[in-house]
Amino acid sequence: MRNPLSVAVVGATGAVGNEFLRLFETRNLPISNLRLLASERSAGKTLKFKGADLTVEEARPDSFEGVDLAFFSAGASRSKALAPYAVASGALVVDNSSAFRMDPSVPLVVPEINAETVLPNSRLIAVPNCTAIILTMAIHPLRKLGQIRRLIVSTYQSASGGGAAMMRLLEEETAAVLQGGEPPASKLNTRYAFNLFSHNTPVGPDGANEEESKVVLETRKILGMPELGVNVTCVRVPVLRAHSESVTVEFGGPAPDLEEVREALEAAEGVRVIDDRERNRFPTPLDASGQGDVLAGRIRHDPSNPNALCLFIAGDQLLKGAALNAVQIAESILARTPALVGK
Amino acid sequence: MRNPLSVAVVGATGAVGNEFLRLFETRNLPISNLRLLASERSAGKTLKFKGADLTVEEARPDSFEGVDLAFFSAGASRSKALAPYAVASGALVVDNSSAFRMDPSVPLVVPEINAETVLPNSRLIAVPNCTAIILTMAIHPLRKLGQIRRLIVSTYQSASGGGAAMMRLLEEETAAVLQGGEPPASKLNTRYAFNLFSHNTPVGPDGANEEESKVVLETRKILGMPELGVNVTCVRVPVLRAHSESVTVEFGGPAPDLEEVREALEAAEGVRVIDDRERNRFPTPLDASGQGDVLAGRIRHDPSNPNALCLFIAGDQLLKGAALNAVQIAESILARTPALVGK
Repeated sequence: MRNPLSVAVVGATGAVGNEFLRLFETRNLPISNLRLLASERSAGKTLKFKGADLTVEEARPDSFEGVDLAFFSAGASRSKALAPYAVASGALVVDNSSAFRMDPSVPLVVPEINAETVLPNSRLIAVPNCTAIILTMAIHPLRKLGQIRRLIVSTYQSASGGGAAMMRLLEEETAAVLQGGEPPASKLNTRYAFNLFSHNTPVGPDGANEEESKVVLETRKILGMPELGVNVTCVRVPVLRAHSESVTVEFGGPAPDLEEVREALEAAEGVRVIDDRERNRFPTPLDASGQGDVLAGRIRHDPSNPNALCLFIAGDQLLKGAALNAVQIAESILARTPALVGK
Repeated sequence: MRNPLSVAVVGATGAVGNEFLRLFETRNLPISNLRLLASERSAGKTLKFKGADLTVEEARPDSFEGVDLAFFSAGASRSKALAPYAVASGALVVDNSSAFRMDPSVPLVVPEINAETVLPNSRLIAVPNCTAIILTMAIHPLRKLGQIRRLIVSTYQSASGGGAAMMRLLEEETAAVLQGGEPPASKLNTRYAFNLFSHNTPVGPDGANEEESKVVLETRKILGMPELGVNVTCVRVPVLRAHSESVTVEFGGPAPDLEEVREALEAAEGVRVIDDRERNRFPTPLDASGQGDVLAGRIRHDPSNPNALCLFIAGDQLLKGAALNAVQIAESILARTPALVGK
C-alpha cells in the first residue's frame, strides 16, 4: 500500500475550493495532511473539513514544501505564478485554470476520455474548461458509432462559472427585482436577474469570446481530433450552478440509429440518460446540480441534415466541470501510474 | 377618410390582451368602439383603456355583431370555436393562436416579410408563433445576400410564452427559493426558479415538441421556402418576457461578408443591431422587453463551415411575437387593402 498524501488546495475559499473539501470527505483519495491556500485577503479564515477547522494560509512560492499533490483553482494568473513552484517542490499539480491547457506538453484530461495522455514524466495536468468537459463527456461515447465531423453548440451557462461572487450577485439582484426595485449596477454590463447575456469574456477579432475559443480548442485537444469543426455560442443564463448545452452532432455519413445512441450514452461511465418523451422529462440544470454525472437527453435526429443528431446535456459546473474532474484525475493517476505522486 | 372601426379583443384579460390595450392607445388604428371579450370566468372584470374602465364580456358566438376587426388571443380551441362566427358576422379576424396557421388558405403574416400574402378575399389572417416571428425577422433581410439553405436554432424562451400565469409562477417560485424554501409542485414537471427546461409542449414521434414543429413549419411558410432546413431546440429559461435565439445560418455558397450582414440587418424595418464587440454588448431579453424591434447581434462567421454565419437575436414575445405583429397586420391591411375591413 502507498503512503497517504499531503495535499494542497490553492483557491480553497472559492466555489470550486469548497467542492474540493466536500469531495475529499467522500472520495477515496488517501489524504494524510491538507493545506488550504488562498489569496492574502482570505488568509486566517477557517474552513470545515471532516468536522475540524482548518486555517487558510496565504498561497506563496514556498507553500508547497512536502506537498505531494496540489490542486489549483484560483485563476490563470495565480496558476502561472505559483504552479511552477509547486512542481519544483515535487508536487504533482492538477490545475483547474486555463493557464497551461493548450501547452502541447501538458495533458488536458477528462479521465473517462483520455487518461492515457498522462505520461510518466507529467508533473502538471490541466483540467479543461467546464463547458468543454460536459460537452466531450457526451460526445466521446458517440465516436464508436461514426466519424464525427462537426459540433454546433449553444450553451446555457450558470452563475457558478463566475464563482461564488457571481452566484451571490444573481441572488441579490433577483431579490431586488422581486421587491420591485432595479438592482444597482454591477461589474457586469447588464442586469443578470431574469435576464441572460453573451458570455462575459473578451471578444476576439473573429467574433468569438474567450470562453468560446476555449471550448473550440480544448474540445479538439481532449478528443484528439484537431480537425473537428466546432461552432459554439456561450450564453450566461440566470441559473445558479449547472451548465446546459444544446448540441447538434454531424457525422461523416448517415447519423446513427437513435437506439444505438441511447445505448452508447447509457453505457458511458459518468453519463446518465434522461430522455422521457412521454412525460416530457429531459435534463435540467437543477437535475444536474450536486450530481457527478453529465445528463444527456432529447436524443433525436436533425430534420435538416440526415447526417446529424441533436442532444441536450447538463452537468454540474463545479463538480464534473471542475473539482470532481480534478479529483478523478488524481485518482486515475494513483490507480494507473502511482509513481507520479508522492515519495 | 375611412370610418373608425369597431374592434373586439378575445382574450382581453391575458398577457397578450393587456398588450393589445396598450398598443391601441399608442398606435394609429382608428377605433370607435372597443369590445373586450374573455372566458366566462373573467366576464365582469374591468380593464383600463384611455383612462376609462371597460367591462369584459364573455366571448360567445353572438359577440361579434357590428365588429369590423377581431383580434383573437385566447388559445387555439377558443379560436377554432369562435373565429368562424366572427368571420360570419363580417369581422376581419387576426388570430394569434395556432388554430389556422398551417391552413393553406390562411395567410400567415409578418408584415415586414409577406404582407402581400393577404388576398382580396382573406377574412382570417394568422399571427405566427412568437419564436418563428422573431427568427424570420432576422433571417428575411439576409436573403438578398445569398441562398439560405438551413437554420440551426437554439432558443431561450421566456415565461411570457406561457401567459401571465407562468410569469407569476416564475416570480413566486423564485421568491420561495430565495427565502431558502423549496416551492410547491406546479403544473410544470420541474422547478422553474433558477432552472430551465425543454419546452413544455407534447413531444411527437420524431422527438420534436409542438413548439419546435411550429417553428419549422411556420418559418418555411412565412418565408415561402418549403424546402428550408430548420433544426430547432426550444428551451424555456427563467426570464420574464422576451425570447432569445442562438442562430446559425447556412447558405448554398460562401457566407456573405459580415459588414454586408450588418448593413442588411440595420436597414431592415423592425430590426435593430446591437453588436459591440469591444464593450461585449449584444442583445439581451431585458433590452428587448417592451421594445417593438427584434434585436440582432453577435454577427460572426461559423468557424466550422465557410458557408455559415452565426447570430444572437432577442425579441419581446408579447409585442412583436404577438400583439404588436397582430396590430401591424391590421394596420398594413388598412394601408394596402382597406376594403377588407369594415363597411
